[in-house]
Amino acid sequence: MFESANLKHHVDKSVYRREATKLRQGLLHAQYELLKDGRFPVLILIAGVEGAGKSETVNLLNEWMDPRHIRASAFFDPSDEERERPALWRFWRALPPKGRIGMFFGAWHTMPIVQRVMREIGEGEFTREIAEIQRFEQMLCDEGVLLLKYWFHLSRRQQKKRLQELADDPKTRWRVTDRDRQYFKLYKRFVKVSDPFLRKTSTGEAPWIVVPGADPRYRTLTVARHLLAAMRERLGEKPVKRLPDKTPPLPAPGDRLNVLRALELDQPMTKAEYAKQLEKWQGRLNVASRDPRFKQFSVVAVFEGNDAAGKGGALRRITGALDARSYTNVAVAAPSEEERAQPYLWRFWRHLPRAGRFTFFDRSWYGRVLVERVEGFCGEADWMRAYTEINDFEGALLRHGCVVAKFWLAISKAEQYRRFKLRERIAFKRFKITGEDWRNRRKWDAYELAVCDMVDRTSTALAPWTLVEANNKYHARIKVLKTLCRALEAALERPGGGKK
Amino acid sequence: MFESANLKHHVDKSVYRREATKLRQGLLHAQYELLKDGRFPVLILIAGVEGAGKSETVNLLNEWMDPRHIRASAFFDPSDEERERPALWRFWRALPPKGRIGMFFGAWHTMPIVQRVMREIGEGEFTREIAEIQRFEQMLCDEGVLLLKYWFHLSRRQQKKRLQELADDPKTRWRVTDRDRQYFKLYKRFVKVSDPFLRKTSTGEAPWIVVPGADPRYRTLTVARHLLAAMRERLGEKPVKRLPDKTPPLPAPGDRLNVLRALELDQPMTKAEYAKQLEKWQGRLNVASRDPRFKQFSVVAVFEGNDAAGKGGALRRITGALDARSYTNVAVAAPSEEERAQPYLWRFWRHLPRAGRFTFFDRSWYGRVLVERVEGFCGEADWMRAYTEINDFEGALLRHGCVVAKFWLAISKAEQYRRFKLRERIAFKRFKITGEDWRNRRKWDAYELAVCDMVDRTSTALAPWTLVEANNKYHARIKVLKTLCRALEAALERPGGGKK
Repeated sequence: MFESANLKHHVDKSVYRREATKLRQGLLHAQYELLKDGRFPVLILIAGVEGAGKSETVNLLNEWMDPRHIRASAFFDPSDEERERPALWRFWRALPPKGRIGMFFGAWHTMPIVQRVMREIGEGEFTREIAEIQRFEQMLCDEGVLLLKYWFHLSRRQQKKRLQELADDPKTRWRVTDRDRQYFKLYKRFVKVSDPFLRKTSTGEAPWIVVPGADPRYRTLTVARHLLAAMRERLGEKPVKRLPDKTPPLPAPGDRLNVLRALELDQPMTKAEYAKQLEKWQGRLNVASRDPRFKQFSVVAVFEGNDAAGKGGALRRITGALDARSYTNVAVAAPSEEERAQPYLWRFWRHLPRAGRFTFFDRSWYGRVLVERVEGFCGEADWMRAYTEINDFEGALLRHGCVVAKFWLAISKAEQYRRFKLRERIAFKRFKITGEDWRNRRKWDAYELAVCDMVDRTSTALAPWTLVEANNKYHARIKVLKTLCRALEAALERPGGGKK
Repeated sequence: MFESANLKHHVDKSVYRREATKLRQGLLHAQYELLKDGRFPVLILIAGVEGAGKSETVNLLNEWMDPRHIRASAFFDPSDEERERPALWRFWRALPPKGRIGMFFGAWHTMPIVQRVMREIGEGEFTREIAEIQRFEQMLCDEGVLLLKYWFHLSRRQQKKRLQELADDPKTRWRVTDRDRQYFKLYKRFVKVSDPFLRKTSTGEAPWIVVPGADPRYRTLTVARHLLAAMRERLGEKPVKRLPDKTPPLPAPGDRLNVLRALELDQPMTKAEYAKQLEKWQGRLNVASRDPRFKQFSVVAVFEGNDAAGKGGALRRITGALDARSYTNVAVAAPSEEERAQPYLWRFWRHLPRAGRFTFFDRSWYGRVLVERVEGFCGEADWMRAYTEINDFEGALLRHGCVVAKFWLAISKAEQYRRFKLRERIAFKRFKITGEDWRNRRKWDAYELAVCDMVDRTSTALAPWTLVEANNKYHARIKVLKTLCRALEAALERPGGGKK
């Protein structure tokens, strides 16, 4: 990847001055058009070796454009907050919304490369990280992010000279850290690791652009020209009209049998039995939630189900056993303006709990493959790729040691009718039933199909779906409580104090 | 993945009869339309457990459609021919051309799953294989293949019953092999491995479809309906018109410096020195080519360069040292009709040598990022993704132990003019110069840019580009000969008798 960048590139002052003025105007103009257009965000990754002009370039771009609409984020050692979430969380938080420009110093590529150079991870783990990055970047591109990746390069000789210059000048001496010196000694190993890394994470849509960093004018023009061309090209694209989907990409069962219909929805449980069980499992959950080992990981639980299936009631029986400071409830409704300006999963990533805490999602990211699929709120290609994206997202949580529990509360169509009617009669429940609920009910079969595909495609060994027979609320609540409690207890027993 | 398929699905005879007739007509009709349309091939993967009706379904589809335009390929233990090429080679060979339907029994998914179940490979290697499959299938989809993946499933109980039935009947007893019995004992482990495999290799474009296999009518309808719907949808799609590319996705250098211009093209070598060197290196190459360890691997060498740079001459100095039975020359011209009906790389895969042999490509797969890019024969997205595809392709060769050598023969623009003029003057060389050559020459700068991007993005540690200064033919020929000879000698010294 560095063949061209190793050459002694150079741009004359006069050439630079003439072009810089034009580029500056062009970039500012493009930035305002992006802001007004608001269709996509621009995410710029700034990576590469020390002393190659990364910060200088970012500062200059901030100077040339309107810095109010640019957000530069530097990722150094992760904070407490960040260490308690999956590694990608810190980057998710900082993603620029549509219409804006984000610049990331040291993004998701840094850790794998450094760890591989330091031999903290083996070739297998490195390969896995590369695959994860490929899929993550693919997701960003599919979600419309204009992803531009610049790698600032210096040859070994150039870097040596540069570090020497910085160290000799009292004003810049502070910039050369021990880490820089240590990394410089490992120059060859860095090249050996980052060269294939760049090649493997370069795709047609988001290739790495290697920027020769030794000549300031040369590197500035390289980045500015490419950035401007890329923004102009995307701004000039007309949105492609997709043909409406004619045929389902996933087959419906050829008989009427599916995982929901196979459930025996009426499960017996008396009120007295319920009271006894409730006390028992709430007690156990409370004890588990106060276990010191729970300081090492977090719990994410998802509640999905038919309208009026009793999600809220089941959830209250869980939170009733917990310290209010230890959990957050997230009721998922239509996305906010801020959320609509981000990739689909962003609004869920932002609510991930710290270690030792719970987040309960009343409806969740599964909306993508349920309501959005059925109602056509997103395209077929979007919800089809969502299965993979969701599995990747939950996979990141699981690898981080998080407990992921997913509940589908199922009631029969007749039971739903009874409950809807009941809600309409009882004054304090009337707010819970709307025309929307009746409309959804008419699409019962389509929702059923979507639920079954969801279970087939996202139920994994470590994050299985629990299908809850919910015609009897007592049974449903106990099953949910018990399942969650057992999952937490099992995680506490994992070697290493709970953390995987 | 198997939640729904584990249910006892069933279709009544009357329902089946009614629908089968319609499906049969529909499929035949779609097949002829596909043949006439000729825009894409259909590739059907048939996978899953033994006894789940894989072969029955394929036989039935062959009966329902016109079998003359269907090619079913079963992949059992690889042949000698196949073992001497990378693992994917056998599948490449069997790909259906545009307009046709191919059915693969036991394709690229089989080996990784079986090896992981048998614990012959670890989790890291399994992950690497999954990533390779994801990229390979992505390439097929990008090349327009309609890829349909059916996984035939039986629950443990169903498979037990099925194997018993087959074994009890004297007419079918032969179908139950020892391997089937052994695999059945490992049923749970197979599920544990194939479940995440299916999830991870399911993409929005090519998801695995799990087919419950116990009920013959049910499974037939499931596959036939889905196949018909998928074919109809693709046949109904209008080709999307791409906007012409306005801006280059890769930046040109900001100065006039690049890896080609950095070469000192005039290298000294006298005729006498040349004769001496030629004798020495041809001798060494001949000895190396007859080394018994060379039986373990193969050599692929690529010759690219400016028009009239002397590719043919350099190549003849190599083949002059070799036994004519040990090498094949492939002169790459415009693709044949058969080749145009296949993915881009197909016409190169087909020429891969057996162990102990050489294949020399006079022009190669790099045409995609050279002439096709410059002349606009393919879209920007196509040649941009080609870098990754080429790296994957060469990566497969390297992992298989193959030696990959790549030469770019570079001459100056003035030297090219001199040679063109000379060719026009000399009668027996006149056939070598056409209007095409003069036209290409006018695009010198665009080609130069494409070559530099190619070198940056495809020169790897194990398959580096050798840039050959070729104004002096003597120097060029010796450099090529020496580089190839040394690469072969180094490979012979690898532990394990040459094979990696």
